[in-house]
Amino acid sequence: MKKIHSLTGMIDLISNKVSKDDIASKIFYTENVLKNIFESYSISEIRTPGLEDTDLFKRSVGDNSDIVNKELYSFFDKNDKSITLRPEGTASVIRSIIEKKIDSESHKLWYLGPMWRYERPQKGRYRQFNQAGVEILGYPEGLAEIEIVSIICSIMKKLKIDDSVLKINHLGDKKSKQEFCIALENFLKPLATKLDERDLQRLNNNPLRILDSKNPETQKILNDAPKIKDFLSNESLDILDLIKSTFSDECNIEIDHNLVRGLDYYTGFVFEAVSSNLGAQDAYLGGGRYDDLCLELGGKEMPAIGMAIGIERLASLAKTLDKPKTLVSLIIISSNIEPKAYKIAHKLRSISDSINIDVQLSNGSLKSKLRRANKDNAAYALIIGEHELETETVIIKPLLDQNSEQTVMSFLDIESFIKEIG
Amino acid sequence: MKKIHSLTGMIDLISNKVSKDDIASKIFYTENVLKNIFESYSISEIRTPGLEDTDLFKRSVGDNSDIVNKELYSFFDKNDKSITLRPEGTASVIRSIIEKKIDSESHKLWYLGPMWRYERPQKGRYRQFNQAGVEILGYPEGLAEIEIVSIICSIMKKLKIDDSVLKINHLGDKKSKQEFCIALENFLKPLATKLDERDLQRLNNNPLRILDSKNPETQKILNDAPKIKDFLSNESLDILDLIKSTFSDECNIEIDHNLVRGLDYYTGFVFEAVSSNLGAQDAYLGGGRYDDLCLELGGKEMPAIGMAIGIERLASLAKTLDKPKTLVSLIIISSNIEPKAYKIAHKLRSISDSINIDVQLSNGSLKSKLRRANKDNAAYALIIGEHELETETVIIKPLLDQNSEQTVMSFLDIESFIKEIG
Repeated sequence: MKKIHSLTGMIDLISNKVSKDDIASKIFYTENVLKNIFESYSISEIRTPGLEDTDLFKRSVGDNSDIVNKELYSFFDKNDKSITLRPEGTASVIRSIIEKKIDSESHKLWYLGPMWRYERPQKGRYRQFNQAGVEILGYPEGLAEIEIVSIICSIMKKLKIDDSVLKINHLGDKKSKQEFCIALENFLKPLATKLDERDLQRLNNNPLRILDSKNPETQKILNDAPKIKDFLSNESLDILDLIKSTFSDECNIEIDHNLVRGLDYYTGFVFEAVSSNLGAQDAYLGGGRYDDLCLELGGKEMPAIGMAIGIERLASLAKTLDKPKTLVSLIIISSNIEPKAYKIAHKLRSISDSINIDVQLSNGSLKSKLRRANKDNAAYALIIGEHELETETVIIKPLLDQNSEQTVMSFLDIESFIKEIG
Repeated sequence: MKKIHSLTGMIDLISNKVSKDDIASKIFYTENVLKNIFESYSISEIRTPGLEDTDLFKRSVGDNSDIVNKELYSFFDKNDKSITLRPEGTASVIRSIIEKKIDSESHKLWYLGPMWRYERPQKGRYRQFNQAGVEILGYPEGLAEIEIVSIICSIMKKLKIDDSVLKINHLGDKKSKQEFCIALENFLKPLATKLDERDLQRLNNNPLRILDSKNPETQKILNDAPKIKDFLSNESLDILDLIKSTFSDECNIEIDHNLVRGLDYYTGFVFEAVSSNLGAQDAYLGGGRYDDLCLELGGKEMPAIGMAIGIERLASLAKTLDKPKTLVSLIIISSNIEPKAYKIAHKLRSISDSINIDVQLSNGSLKSKLRRANKDNAAYALIIGEHELETETVIIKPLLDQNSEQTVMSFLDIESFIKEIG
């Protein structure tokens, strides 16, 4: 019968116990670390649906961004309404806060989940990928910026990410951003013939994004262009220095006045963490202040700052893994189904939270089951055969320590043994 | 500006710290409990994409099921290919195992994530909902059945679910299932005029599902119909008795020979846990053996048993909640941004995993910040004003214990204080 394949650019993650898929285990681990960090900042979880009205992303991420122009995973539903699988998390969070009429309060929120972009499949780019994010809502520029950078430093430290730089910049307030854009346009328009098609498009749609150009010709031209720095107020420059000096003992921070971000909605402080270990797509987290978005989506005026984290990329950089829990492999050797023996495992699990018990369900021989237990790195095999069932005993065979001898224990004593090793 | 709304039947989950949304917090809690239980059985995580080729569900869930007939959330992608947002988890897991060519090995897998069905919105039914599941692959009937029921008992115990019955049944092997279906058809065909349209459809497409009918007339007719019990082998009846006797001390188990399941692919042992606290849609988990599915999807012959859990329903029944971590509220009273004060929180978080520290980011007064700390149930407020910054001290104000006095501590001593309370 014909096999059915997964869709282009969509992968299955299976823990490496099953498939040697190391990145899947790293992703699951990284997600747990992030959740714990967010909770330690007293940030609350929010989970929005995978699908939204397409207009939400057109109005938030922006008509001019690459995401909306080329990458939205959109379709028409059965009522001919344009629906989009969310390409990022911020727009939905703000939509939700407005809908629940809590956009005049302040909130600290985190999310984690799948996102979708209809991209040309290529290395390190998937059509479904995982993103986590934090949104700090209702606080004007100040401590909220410090908090976001504090979270980033905690992530880098916990996951032992070296070779990483946190680039920070300030896009100014609305007025200075506008003045700079006009100055940049005036400078570049006479040089338009020297720009490639993509940069030309940017010049017309969102001149700020030219600073992001990977074209060396464009970068050469930009050397003499007006600098965003010269349009910034002292307050904006001060906050960059303040952040840098506060966290420079924890993390490698660089002020980069060419840093803009791919989305239209940023205002003020922006940042991006990059690592040379990631290749061409070197950013694994980024974000910034977006004080106008709530108003633009029909809500109240609400200052806001947030960040998004690419889980696949962050996980590929993560260094540590949890010490796995003690694994005990229960081997039942019997010609019948022996619920009595199984029930021992059932009871033992309720005794200790720090032990995982794998009951081997196959009909294999003792030898093949011991081989499996060793392969799984079990610390002990508990063996119950016909004789042990009769005498209500269990053979305990230590597997990690070659010098330890196997012992025999009664059903009753096994509980205290499990408590001891757990 | 016009507001954008979430899509019909798709809800936002926000922790009740933010929105008083108690069910969201219960869902997040329930998911964590399930993950820990699955891990304690040494089951590995698998995560498949949200989207699949529509054929996958037509071939697995079955053309005759309600899900495929009416509820698939399908659309055409940009290449005019029919894509479906997964309505359940099992089909994708088997598709993945076949694609990775590990369908001749044995596996214990769990998944958790959003599912979609294009249903008419009604109470307790969403177009996006959360499901967890376990698939035990590669083991024939026997201990795997016992393990599945053991997992169910662990879930009920940990979430303190009373008023619940686990209904179990056996659909027989392929041969006895077929014989029963023929006998049932022969019995019902002369009575077809007495059946309503829906049951008539079932009779033609999948006669077994008539047993599920909610129509009292049909149920009256079925009283005299052939019983599945009379077609079962002794081995099949024995396994039901064995399961019931093994776990009857842990959970309310009933053998119900009218239990069939909504999906086409079940063979052998089937089960459903119901609670009278759920109303008309009273099942919150269910599953069974499906030995033929892997072969039907183009893989090898692979015996399999699995279950799916409706997270929203299970969470609504769950009774306990985690003891929350100790919350410490840091209040900085200063006219400037004080990274030095913020940095204290940053350091404290790295000291203890069992404390959450909420830095109040607003410009409010001491009084309003203390009110907020009390509202959030913080155990302590750490207060740092201009004077404390100068003298490198912190005021510690206990909030839960009315009789405790506030104390003053140096920046250095605060670390050991946090270790003590954490």
